Amino acid sequence: MSTLDIVIYCGIFVFSLTGALNARAHHMDIFGAIVLAFVTSYGGGSIRDIVMDARPINWMNDNLALALVITPVIIISLVKFNFNRLRRLIFFTDAVGLGLFTVAGIDRSAQFGANEPYSLLMGVVTATFGGLIADILCNNVPNLLRRGELYATACAIGGAVYILSKRFVEDSTFSLIICICLIVIIRIISKYKKVMLPEV
Amino acid sequence: MSTLDIVIYCGIFVFSLTGALNARAHHMDIFGAIVLAFVTSYGGGSIRDIVMDARPINWMNDNLALALVITPVIIISLVKFNFNRLRRLIFFTDAVGLGLFTVAGIDRSAQFGANEPYSLLMGVVTATFGGLIADILCNNVPNLLRRGELYATACAIGGAVYILSKRFVEDSTFSLIICICLIVIIRIISKYKKVMLPEV
Amino acid sequence: MSTLDIVIYCGIFVFSLTGALNARAHHMDIFGAIVLAFVTSYGGGSIRDIVMDARPINWMNDNLALALVITPVIIISLVKFNFNRLRRLIFFTDAVGLGLFTVAGIDRSAQFGANEPYSLLMGVVTATFGGLIADILCNNVPNLLRRGELYATACAIGGAVYILSKRFVEDSTFSLIICICLIVIIRIISKYKKVMLPEV
Repeated sequence: MSTLDIVIYCGIFVFSLTGALNARAHHMDIFGAIVLAFVTSYGGGSIRDIVMDARPINWMNDNLALALVITPVIIISLVKFNFNRLRRLIFFTDAVGLGLFTVAGIDRSAQFGANEPYSLLMGVVTATFGGLIADILCNNVPNLLRRGELYATACAIGGAVYILSKRFVEDSTFSLIICICLIVIIRIISKYKKVMLPEV
Repeated sequence: MSTLDIVIYCGIFVFSLTGALNARAHHMDIFGAIVLAFVTSYGGGSIRDIVMDARPINWMNDNLALALVITPVIIISLVKFNFNRLRRLIFFTDAVGLGLFTVAGIDRSAQFGANEPYSLLMGVVTATFGGLIADILCNNVPNLLRRGELYATACAIGGAVYILSKRFVEDSTFSLIICICLIVIIRIISKYKKVMLPEV
Repeated sequence: MSTLDIVIYCGIFVFSLTGALNARAHHMDIFGAIVLAFVTSYGGGSIRDIVMDARPINWMNDNLALALVITPVIIISLVKFNFNRLRRLIFFTDAVGLGLFTVAGIDRSAQFGANEPYSLLMGVVTATFGGLIADILCNNVPNLLRRGELYATACAIGGAVYILSKRFVEDSTFSLIICICLIVIIRIISKYKKVMLPEV
């Protein structure tokens, strides 16, 4: 397993944790929490793979993926820990995860034949639509669509820079790091300076 | 680009406009409006193509489709125009769009192996399920399913007549025009005479 | 048509009945009820087939499936019968249906390349996600995810026993019957003894 794989699995763990905490806030049982954790981490990539007809779907037969989704749910249901204390850590890991998911989505959809605008679109979908489906399951208007901190926009900007930089730089690891740093910075600025998109 | 293509792209423009206005009513930001506009215009066709395994999905790599979704959002967010004045025009264009989407859905699914009842089903899905997904994203019970003006029913009747008339008429343009006229007429009658389906 | 097919079609009839009753409770019209009935009976299998890329999707061009979805809707809209009287019968048939859908989902996904944990997952999805989509369409938090009677858990246990028993027993009908009995028993115990999963 490469360093990149390890980092991606960390992203999945954090996304699952978010899903499980979300489930607790909605008084779901353990089964509901597993569904929500799975959807939050793998929902975006599933939509991308189904739309692009990229088969097999990215998590199929990956028992580690299953374990990474179930473990956070078990941890949260056993340890009644106050996760607010970890808020800063989760915010940071989530932003890194966004960057990784965006880049993974761009690369995979380009590989299956998407042109540049559509691979950017698929990158943003990969990173953000898991949370959107989770919000639908919880019967909320998805946070993603409402006015608030830059989230999808951060992915879109980071992803666009990644696509552009790959034209000029040979080493895609460099482009990846640029993309992640950019997304983390935009997320931080948006959070603390209250930068938002205008309402339509 | 044929005349038919131009008319279909007009339908997409109107469906996107509906999505963007819907997004404004739900206080979404510009990103949310783009998602809603995209889903309203391309959601039904996407479900059809995914279910029928018709690949590539109809909007893939179509940069014009992307432009036709984003333009109405930009127009609406810049020009704070009162679209109620255009209500009649939008009602009419929407009805024509319904007819075009129904016929496009029927033809495409028949081409990918659906029999007549199922291609009719897919025609109705193509025309109406974009709005249904948009309603889910806005956290409403889909209008489509609630008792009200004939909408899906208009598509079903128009589509059934289209399928029947293709058996007897060589020229499918003629069947298309019959179908669209029928849908427009049913929509108008339903609106002004308050014709509805019974509750279950 | 084999005995198994007949039993499965009975399951579909009951699931459609549930969907149609759900539609009545939400004041939908006949079209809405047909959509809800279809989604309740075929939604789970559709998700499974789309995710596994099992084509054609299980209900495609099956006119009997269409009839089995539409008939309960017509019955319910014509006969304003009080279905509460049939509650016990519906509870029992629903539990048998759960077992059949779970086993059908496990077998079909295994046939299309899922390993054991994932075919179990797909079995549970087949049996339970139709109701979940129906709840989303009705704008409710899905019952499935909330704390309550064991439902998905019953499928998971029954499905796991089915997979295990197939390793040791040649005759898969025997494993099927074990699985269904187990699910019916767990459902009954859970209902009358108020056994639930813990909250997360």
